[in-house]
Amino acid sequence: MPTSEPADVATLEALLPKGRVLTAQEASLAAYLHDEGEWAVYGTPRAVVRPESTEEVAEVVRWCARTGTPLVPRGAGTGLSGAANAIEGCVIVSFERMNQVLEVNEAERWARVQPGVVNDDLRAHVAQHGLWYPPDPASSPWSTIGGNVATNAGGMCCVKYGVTRDYVLELEVVTGTGEITRLGTRTAKGVAGYNLVGLIVGSEGTLAVVTEVVVRLRPLPPAPITVAGMFDSLVDAGRAVALVAESGISPSTLELVDRHCLKAVDDWKHMGLSTDANAVLIGRTDARGEQGEFEAAELARCFEEAGASFAAVSADEQESEALYAARRLAYPALERLGPVLTEDVCVPKARVPEVLARIEEISAAHSVLIANIAHAGDGNLHPLIITAAGDEAAKTRAHEAFDEIIDAALAAGGTVTGEHGVGTLKLDGLAKELPPASLALHHAVKHAMDPHGILNPGRAIPPLG
Amino acid sequence: MPTSEPADVATLEALLPKGRVLTAQEASLAAYLHDEGEWAVYGTPRAVVRPESTEEVAEVVRWCARTGTPLVPRGAGTGLSGAANAIEGCVIVSFERMNQVLEVNEAERWARVQPGVVNDDLRAHVAQHGLWYPPDPASSPWSTIGGNVATNAGGMCCVKYGVTRDYVLELEVVTGTGEITRLGTRTAKGVAGYNLVGLIVGSEGTLAVVTEVVVRLRPLPPAPITVAGMFDSLVDAGRAVALVAESGISPSTLELVDRHCLKAVDDWKHMGLSTDANAVLIGRTDARGEQGEFEAAELARCFEEAGASFAAVSADEQESEALYAARRLAYPALERLGPVLTEDVCVPKARVPEVLARIEEISAAHSVLIANIAHAGDGNLHPLIITAAGDEAAKTRAHEAFDEIIDAALAAGGTVTGEHGVGTLKLDGLAKELPPASLALHHAVKHAMDPHGILNPGRAIPPLG
Repeated sequence: MPTSEPADVATLEALLPKGRVLTAQEASLAAYLHDEGEWAVYGTPRAVVRPESTEEVAEVVRWCARTGTPLVPRGAGTGLSGAANAIEGCVIVSFERMNQVLEVNEAERWARVQPGVVNDDLRAHVAQHGLWYPPDPASSPWSTIGGNVATNAGGMCCVKYGVTRDYVLELEVVTGTGEITRLGTRTAKGVAGYNLVGLIVGSEGTLAVVTEVVVRLRPLPPAPITVAGMFDSLVDAGRAVALVAESGISPSTLELVDRHCLKAVDDWKHMGLSTDANAVLIGRTDARGEQGEFEAAELARCFEEAGASFAAVSADEQESEALYAARRLAYPALERLGPVLTEDVCVPKARVPEVLARIEEISAAHSVLIANIAHAGDGNLHPLIITAAGDEAAKTRAHEAFDEIIDAALAAGGTVTGEHGVGTLKLDGLAKELPPASLALHHAVKHAMDPHGILNPGRAIPPLG
Repeated sequence: MPTSEPADVATLEALLPKGRVLTAQEASLAAYLHDEGEWAVYGTPRAVVRPESTEEVAEVVRWCARTGTPLVPRGAGTGLSGAANAIEGCVIVSFERMNQVLEVNEAERWARVQPGVVNDDLRAHVAQHGLWYPPDPASSPWSTIGGNVATNAGGMCCVKYGVTRDYVLELEVVTGTGEITRLGTRTAKGVAGYNLVGLIVGSEGTLAVVTEVVVRLRPLPPAPITVAGMFDSLVDAGRAVALVAESGISPSTLELVDRHCLKAVDDWKHMGLSTDANAVLIGRTDARGEQGEFEAAELARCFEEAGASFAAVSADEQESEALYAARRLAYPALERLGPVLTEDVCVPKARVPEVLARIEEISAAHSVLIANIAHAGDGNLHPLIITAAGDEAAKTRAHEAFDEIIDAALAAGGTVTGEHGVGTLKLDGLAKELPPASLALHHAVKHAMDPHGILNPGRAIPPLG
């Protein structure tokens, strides 16, 4: 089947209802060129398709297979690694019109949704049923479940509740050969067949095109108690994280925000955030009753033992919501200062202090501003490297810092990406992380699932050495 | 490489240190012919190898690849689907000598173990560090972590704590081409590369040979509160399960045992178990403090609302331990009565009552005794079909009942196997469950990971239609 037909967009348009295809001549196509990983390369797509059904997606996949055209699936474009960036001459499949919650089953606690549903919209929808979809990337007001599935998105509550993969029961997909099939089971347990659902989650659109998702839900959790800690140094905050890990409690959130982030948010939103501390930890517990009180007290104790200048259970709900909002807004706030190169390493929790110290050294050595936010309780660090727009020398230094942070994480027994994915930005890093025999297995699986090599080629796994 | 060399066991022996290989001439080989799925077919192995290192395993895999010999990995042989049964002319790789806990990391909460470690031995080992390895198949006193990984084993506490796959961070494997590699990451989160760890867990030795496992641990949970419920009918007990599912609480155990099982255990162990009730539910909560008391009261309320003849929080620890032990001993107790054909369907929780009713009908229609145990809180039912030894007509009827239970589970939106795996016993059932395009993907992945077709061939996935 591959490349037996010329890649003439008119033949693609003829397969689909009117209005589905944007061609390179249309100005609106510009909105689909790249995701938020703005440092990643991108090309010009041959066309953007906005399908309204699974069958339409399958038509596009089959056309791409026949014409040898790369297909790039796209959610809201909030990714940070370039995985949804246009490949030169590709077809982008945007799921913006497949954005419905199709079914909610209260007794079994799952929802069946289209990939274009926005994460926060799904949360709001299921909350009406007293249910909760936990994975909460900071992009949740914009990012889609399809994109979350593609990257195995994490978020604030993962430290207690796990990541996207833990909540995907079943997928409907279009395979690399254009067939529609369902994978997985909606039952609480199941070992029938290989775990292809878990394989496709996090594969960045390189193994199949996801057209429907059945997600597992939980009962809504109780209102959390927030514990804030202010620290004179990032490293002290890192020590607090290691102490919490040792304590055995399960905070529902343990986030780190540094002074640069707080200042950027406050300059933008005027929330009256204090920027006296060099680092703030935001801990939360949603355990019920006395267990919640115990965990809150333990968080405060760990913060104090690590040398916090201030640590207290927040009595003021507005204040604690402001801190939490500041964490969510840190990334867009920093983007206002210039292009941001986002790191996403994940390291053993006990190594957080030393890796934070190493990041400070790298910042100084390369004369680049590195702000820090972190899903600290998971050891998932997001150093944000900021340069002035147009400063090419700074950009080069930023790339050097980016590579050195990756090396520091690997040296500490960590991984190059905790939740943002590989896209194109982390291909070199992943090549360092994977043993050659593992990389060979990755390519064998990729070829098995995508024999024509059309599904987001060149993303997620580095080339064979 | 494949089949370029005759499968002469002497050449295999020459590759390994002395004492590793048992040949077909040795009487002790008989212990390796089949697992506990005694109704499944098995052949005579060419040899049994008991390697003591990963490098030795790799030698065996490479020899099998060169000679085209099927390789069957084996833990303790407690499987129930025939996945570890000898294939005619195969080499069995028994992990009985690779049974060490290699490392425990308290701060990061993981343990690095060899596949031959017995589940309960791992639990006892990590308990010394205040840590807990949750997955607890009823076979935990005998079954190994390698076998648990191969089948993605579940157990009593899965209803709250998840299954084996949820606890595997990293694997060392020998690939189908005889290369040694590591997969996964020990960090709390990670999306670097495809989820090959999650793919291999549950693949029954058909995609790679696991030689080391890094498992995630949790802090030891508090002592549970047990709530027992006695029911006049299985269906009432099933309704109680559905009510618990609706209630929103998270019991740490919700097990069903019927009168046949209680009687078999009591006849064997003389534990003084009451066999007045037709079905007993054993609920447990390990939530702390007042939340635990609340959940225990909720369990009792659900049992009563469903029509329990007796429902109470157990005041007597010995009594509650006896009930729990009875659940664990049910399978071996029933085996004393004759060959047991074990079902393992999993259905939506709300459909438990109707499927239990259907199982009773099937038992009556085929005149076979069907005892029931169930991980009821997960909708994971284990109807145990018992026939008198040597009664071939009953065996035929048992097989018919087995197939009809599978059909009933699928009709209720369930799956053919919740935790025991496909092995050979569920190949026909799985062929009914998987859509053709999904089966094709399964075979593509199998071929990618095992290009010579030597890794436990014919198990886990049915042949292409």
